[in-house]
Amino acid sequence: MPTLLHLDSSADLRRSRTRELTARFAEVWQAAGPDHAVVRRDLHRDPLPHLPDAALHWPPRLRPADAAPPADVEALQQALIDELTAADVLLVGAPLYNYTVPSTLKSWLDYVHVPGVTVPFDEPTQPMTGRPAVVVTSQGVAYDPGTPTEGQDHAVPVLQILLGQALGMELTVVTVPLGLAATVPALADQRERADSEFAAAHETLAALATKLAG
Amino acid sequence: MPTLLHLDSSADLRRSRTRELTARFAEVWQAAGPDHAVVRRDLHRDPLPHLPDAALHWPPRLRPADAAPPADVEALQQALIDELTAADVLLVGAPLYNYTVPSTLKSWLDYVHVPGVTVPFDEPTQPMTGRPAVVVTSQGVAYDPGTPTEGQDHAVPVLQILLGQALGMELTVVTVPLGLAATVPALADQRERADSEFAAAHETLAALATKLAG
Repeated sequence: MPTLLHLDSSADLRRSRTRELTARFAEVWQAAGPDHAVVRRDLHRDPLPHLPDAALHWPPRLRPADAAPPADVEALQQALIDELTAADVLLVGAPLYNYTVPSTLKSWLDYVHVPGVTVPFDEPTQPMTGRPAVVVTSQGVAYDPGTPTEGQDHAVPVLQILLGQALGMELTVVTVPLGLAATVPALADQRERADSEFAAAHETLAALATKLAG
Repeated sequence: MPTLLHLDSSADLRRSRTRELTARFAEVWQAAGPDHAVVRRDLHRDPLPHLPDAALHWPPRLRPADAAPPADVEALQQALIDELTAADVLLVGAPLYNYTVPSTLKSWLDYVHVPGVTVPFDEPTQPMTGRPAVVVTSQGVAYDPGTPTEGQDHAVPVLQILLGQALGMELTVVTVPLGLAATVPALADQRERADSEFAAAHETLAALATKLAG
């Protein structure tokens, strides 16, 4: 059964654009047929604890001899890794908060990025290789090339390294900029662009879901 | 009374290089005299909750009309901002975890970066302008210019934007690379460099603490 793992991390339950867009993707995926499963994990509503021990960055065989991370958190980590590796497609809602990912999403990344388990290290283990990952990211302003904010989005690059390079997934990033245009007077002249890119993202995600549900 | 706010975020309580280095700085600061205070906040041992409501990114006057963040978390946020603005010098231990800051440090940043309060927005408020911030960052490998990992450190740039540009602080970054050289055979030939840069960082931080303790 083709399974979608649907993660959200927006801290805005009323107006989040990433939540609206990931919901659209999941809807179209599910509409592809009763055999199309969706596993939902809301990293904001049900936040993961901050990684309580640096030893959990590594599998037991690569940890210091005196490492003793809490057993319940090791079990949680294994459950998160199992959930990920059971997914055929990964969908991540990742709003840009203060120039990088929300802390809730960072926690999840810290649990599942484990060299020698999900990422090649001493063994060539990379269970997610070649599977699609769809990242939906929103930004308050815009980070266009040639503007003063160019290069200040440090969320997408981290997701590209972790999900794309390290986990080996086929990453698609859909970005909706200028969320603040609706409320900040200085950005009022950007409202049309914000609206049209948001509408375009809806269509892009619906088409992508149809294709990946194939 | 000159006050140092000393933050740590390493999840390693036994071998952390950032903890050792921030402790050195704080020791030298405190040795400058009985009037030199240190306020310690360990973001790993006493983790902050993930920001529970996106409305807290803004002060009340700039939030949506229907915003209703939990009162106890608003009080926590105010306490964190008060603690920061009471500090003459900020010291941050910030190990690079999976290409960006630990989730514990990201949570703290989300609480204290508030446009219109700590960061100029509709009003030119920037209470930390010109005060020194010392960031001690550690890396498992190295991110040297001209190597394949160049540009993959997305922790320091975020701290430069948030603490330097947004809060207006005078930022000094002390980096210790190659923490994995001690244990990963493929990096064994880098051990000497790792050790010598770590020793140099000790001296740099001691000298900086002496200078900033004035």
